[in-house]
Amino acid sequence: MPDPTRTWTAALIVIGDEILSGRTQDRNVAQIATWLNVQGIRLREVRVVADDQDAIVEAVNALRARNDYLFTTGGIGPTHDDITVDAIAAALGVPVEIHESARAVLAAYYESRGGLTEARLRMARVPAGASLIENRMSGAPGIRHGNIFIMAGVPSITAGMLESLTGALEGGRPLLSATIGCWVAESEVADLLGATERAHEGCQIGSYPFFREGRTGANFVVRSTDQDRLDACMASLTAGLEQGGWPVHPGGI
Amino acid sequence: MPDPTRTWTAALIVIGDEILSGRTQDRNVAQIATWLNVQGIRLREVRVVADDQDAIVEAVNALRARNDYLFTTGGIGPTHDDITVDAIAAALGVPVEIHESARAVLAAYYESRGGLTEARLRMARVPAGASLIENRMSGAPGIRHGNIFIMAGVPSITAGMLESLTGALEGGRPLLSATIGCWVAESEVADLLGATERAHEGCQIGSYPFFREGRTGANFVVRSTDQDRLDACMASLTAGLEQGGWPVHPGGI
Repeated sequence: MPDPTRTWTAALIVIGDEILSGRTQDRNVAQIATWLNVQGIRLREVRVVADDQDAIVEAVNALRARNDYLFTTGGIGPTHDDITVDAIAAALGVPVEIHESARAVLAAYYESRGGLTEARLRMARVPAGASLIENRMSGAPGIRHGNIFIMAGVPSITAGMLESLTGALEGGRPLLSATIGCWVAESEVADLLGATERAHEGCQIGSYPFFREGRTGANFVVRSTDQDRLDACMASLTAGLEQGGWPVHPGGI
Repeated sequence: MPDPTRTWTAALIVIGDEILSGRTQDRNVAQIATWLNVQGIRLREVRVVADDQDAIVEAVNALRARNDYLFTTGGIGPTHDDITVDAIAAALGVPVEIHESARAVLAAYYESRGGLTEARLRMARVPAGASLIENRMSGAPGIRHGNIFIMAGVPSITAGMLESLTGALEGGRPLLSATIGCWVAESEVADLLGATERAHEGCQIGSYPFFREGRTGANFVVRSTDQDRLDACMASLTAGLEQGGWPVHPGGI
């Protein structure tokens, strides 16, 4: 009988100089976080590291041990700066090998595109003992090794890989959330927020201020794995804000 | 005489459940990375952690020791989920105190906005020994303690804090970059990219594939701290691509 209170956790390593240089705006953190929530898995920590073997090895070994799942994005293409597979194999202490099914997938994909060159065959390399994650968008598959999921860096390709993993990972109860917004400075309702969270066990309230059109506002997000508790907490928070004279915008502003 | 070859590094800790839940798309990594490049400082690693004291303490102590600078974003507001100051003080082993100049700044800011309540006074709390970073957008200042820079989570406020720090941090030579794009599968030019990088010391070439309008392309970014080397590498790469029959788009596609 599975424990309904167990929290399943994941970590994510975003691999790529282009994120650390500011050239590319990462989209995979939000995408993978959202997908994990639906699977009942909590994204607990993220690291962004350079295309550097030592940095990848350190992050992989720190995070795979203390989370149920570890995802990586980036560095699995055919070029010289794609070193993720080698680095993860080094972290695991296993050799790199050609995965025969990946070779077949790539051979079929590139048959009408100039053939399977040596550079393209690099994308069939996996840490020994791995299985594949289907890539519905382009040729090169993702890679699974134990609790590690090695994904593409291009967000649309990662999306397809996540789709093919949907429902395949054991998780717990999904984290539910509800949002309301108010045109109020969060400092005016700080006490109310704290008191409401303390009165509702199993719920967290996040407060996210913003400045728009010269006005100050905030969105408040209640999170819980229990729908009834979440509803009770949100009702209490809404009543408190309305009583304070701040009309509430369901769904946020 | 400063060493012109020294690389100055920074790390960034993004603090916030809203990033890990997927609710909020982070904008501070790219913003701070870009700003650091101009200061001659390299962003070497990023961690995203929850609003959790132990997680923040671990990340702060790991990253401040091995980088010249450490930046944090998020968790410095007036509400119960804003625990960054307490966590960083705990990491440093110093008490939290009210910074008198911060109190004065907040008192002035809130004079016409309902006064300096207890919740608002929370934003004057700093790890003992800290100085302030000017906030040109709203009341609460950022905080500097040694090599740690504690910034807001709201990107527009962070931008103002970065502006007030511009030119104030010692750095090395800025990392320069140039970009070209080609309508080519990166796997077709993988050998050319690797060989060009090996032939040009002090340059790195990044390859960033994309799929647009049903076509495959890639942007290639050459990075170096030396303009002459960068120009030579880019000229060589451009010649190689053009000779291979792939017209080059300066600036990228």
